[in-house]
Amino acid sequence: MTVIEELNQKGQLAKTSSYQLATLSTEIKNQALLAIAGALRNETAFLLAENEKDLAQGKDSGMNQGLLDRLALTEARIAAMAEGIEQIAALPDPIGEALSKTVRPNGLNITKVRVPLGVIGIIYEARPNVTADAAGLCIKSGNAVILRGGKEALCSNRAIVQVMQNAGYRAGLPVGCINLIENTSRESATELMRLNEYLDVIIPRGGAGLIRAVVENATVPAIETGTGNCHVYVDASADLSMAKRIVINAKTQRPSVCNAEEKLLVHQDIAKEFLPDMLKNLSDFGVSIVGDAKVCSLFPSATLATEEDWSTEYLDLKIGVKIVENLEDAIAHINRYNSRHSEAIITQDTEAAKKFQNEVDAAAVYVNASTRFTDGFEFGFGAEIGISTQKIHARGPMGLAELTSSKYVIQGTGQIRE
Amino acid sequence: MTVIEELNQKGQLAKTSSYQLATLSTEIKNQALLAIAGALRNETAFLLAENEKDLAQGKDSGMNQGLLDRLALTEARIAAMAEGIEQIAALPDPIGEALSKTVRPNGLNITKVRVPLGVIGIIYEARPNVTADAAGLCIKSGNAVILRGGKEALCSNRAIVQVMQNAGYRAGLPVGCINLIENTSRESATELMRLNEYLDVIIPRGGAGLIRAVVENATVPAIETGTGNCHVYVDASADLSMAKRIVINAKTQRPSVCNAEEKLLVHQDIAKEFLPDMLKNLSDFGVSIVGDAKVCSLFPSATLATEEDWSTEYLDLKIGVKIVENLEDAIAHINRYNSRHSEAIITQDTEAAKKFQNEVDAAAVYVNASTRFTDGFEFGFGAEIGISTQKIHARGPMGLAELTSSKYVIQGTGQIRE
Repeated sequence: MTVIEELNQKGQLAKTSSYQLATLSTEIKNQALLAIAGALRNETAFLLAENEKDLAQGKDSGMNQGLLDRLALTEARIAAMAEGIEQIAALPDPIGEALSKTVRPNGLNITKVRVPLGVIGIIYEARPNVTADAAGLCIKSGNAVILRGGKEALCSNRAIVQVMQNAGYRAGLPVGCINLIENTSRESATELMRLNEYLDVIIPRGGAGLIRAVVENATVPAIETGTGNCHVYVDASADLSMAKRIVINAKTQRPSVCNAEEKLLVHQDIAKEFLPDMLKNLSDFGVSIVGDAKVCSLFPSATLATEEDWSTEYLDLKIGVKIVENLEDAIAHINRYNSRHSEAIITQDTEAAKKFQNEVDAAAVYVNASTRFTDGFEFGFGAEIGISTQKIHARGPMGLAELTSSKYVIQGTGQIRE
Repeated sequence: MTVIEELNQKGQLAKTSSYQLATLSTEIKNQALLAIAGALRNETAFLLAENEKDLAQGKDSGMNQGLLDRLALTEARIAAMAEGIEQIAALPDPIGEALSKTVRPNGLNITKVRVPLGVIGIIYEARPNVTADAAGLCIKSGNAVILRGGKEALCSNRAIVQVMQNAGYRAGLPVGCINLIENTSRESATELMRLNEYLDVIIPRGGAGLIRAVVENATVPAIETGTGNCHVYVDASADLSMAKRIVINAKTQRPSVCNAEEKLLVHQDIAKEFLPDMLKNLSDFGVSIVGDAKVCSLFPSATLATEEDWSTEYLDLKIGVKIVENLEDAIAHINRYNSRHSEAIITQDTEAAKKFQNEVDAAAVYVNASTRFTDGFEFGFGAEIGISTQKIHARGPMGLAELTSSKYVIQGTGQIRE
């Protein structure tokens, strides 16, 4: 089967399935999710055996330890996957909610109802748990899904999808609601982004390269997720011990994620007092430091930052540091270089806080807290499909509601337009 | 100045302006809109003179009477443009609204606030009134706008934008909030669709060709508008005189618009009783009829429809007619061929109505009313930038709220992630 044949076949299946899924009752969807969770647990041995094939292949091809670790399934990880699906089952069903109601002077009764998007394409990289997670969220929100995971995880993804498909089908889900593209060539990703006949939206989950490829190639409406060049700005009036705690947390607690701090901006009035000790602390945590000329003179073991540094998401124990003249300067720098993800100000000045929150252009703008909280679970959504860094459709963490669209249903009694 | 230079220059201006616009008070925005409306009225002679140049050029190049009529400004049309701006001023300001508030167990205070999209690009065709309309809606919703109108209307558009810019600036709007691309080559449209550095969203307003070009070429997030291959399905239980009134209205009241009826589906049980008289009536209104074989045998002056007919938006006094076996058949046909715009069922059977509204995939689904009501004004939004036929961000008529995004603002007291 060629790539195009596989995409068209699974696209058609998903489209047909999506019409049935859209009208499925909450009860059936929840029962199916619970059955799927149970099946994932029961099939632990099968899933581990299939995952072993991917791991063996990975080792043979010289995959590094970090990637092998992300790829590995364990009993605990499979249990966590099953638990995630059970948590999704326990969330309220977004579908069918009346978002607005109005009766017009001519008697037309107009209701805006929440409906599924239809068919969602998801392109992602190594971790196989995304397979279960994304499929679970799509089913709960009444969407059919076409998954296109990385080639390193093909055996694992195929096994997870097979277990989910079988258990879901036996519990009442339509055939074709969960689909995995088994051709993992670059072409299969590019063509999936252009499968307008069957897909309603495409969501990439992965690094900056994948996101760029989607922006450049997709003709299906896309939701950009993930890139985070996040700043913490320490204002002149900041509580400096709070600032230090937050900077350390935002940079070092988990440096490889999109809501980690990548840049530190410091008001010039407190730079001398704050920076040497702060940067020494970061160094002690193993963070390498690049900075502007003033930073380098205050902290000689810092390296001079290049222009490129200011827009780079390191995802590593590395930070860019800049001394700014004032709040306006900080806001202008952030709006110029950030990726519209998460930004924080540390300040005791409520006017400065308000100005920062109003004027910084980002999905999440924090006052006196770590950027690391931008996350569907931390925001109380109970689940997350990704973090949108674009402005249309959804911005910030996306939960079940962000996997829906709406439809106007209008009840008339014979009205015609005059 | 090259196309790219013009786009970059105006893009940068618009971006800078958008940050100022985002924090402008409702009062200043409204005063500016009223000042703009007044200026459009005061400058009627200037606008008519500039429009005259476009009309002369159009006649010279053999433009047809329909297009010349769409291009023409008159005192009444300029007054209507000014009135439209005044109506926008009177609408509630969507910006700053708190969409949700939550306090997390760790004390983080999370508010989701409505904010402008930023910079909106609009690509449109002949009618110069779109210029004033679109700019007015963007200003009210706190967005900077880059307009790229058709070359036939360049003098008119330039004059309108100049009057709006001057009056707006004197009333407190930032420089660069309204921009017109004066290079009207195809390249300027294509490059505007790819101006990701400055644009947050692109909205095409025009025919199927323009929409296709945007889907194919845009790298900026786009909102598809407008194409309407709308169906009216007359069910077995329909009140046939109501059905006839609605079909005539939906097809003939204004056949050139996107919410006009393009296809008529009729349940086989009533086809013999209903169709001959219905089609005779449509013929009397000058409507040409294509149909399936059964329709042609019931109404011999109909022409046999081709496969292409079922997906074609005629925008003319022409209709495609098909006899369907039952409700399921009607729904399947609509979901296969429609453009997700507006669909209607005429029925006295509430179960059939419910099934149709649940299962038909479209922005607006009517029971016992004309499809012609899909319109921001008819829905009570007070204004409209277009009708979205995609599922992400906005679906159906788009008013001011659909020109906004959101932002999470989070107030902490030093929280870090454990």
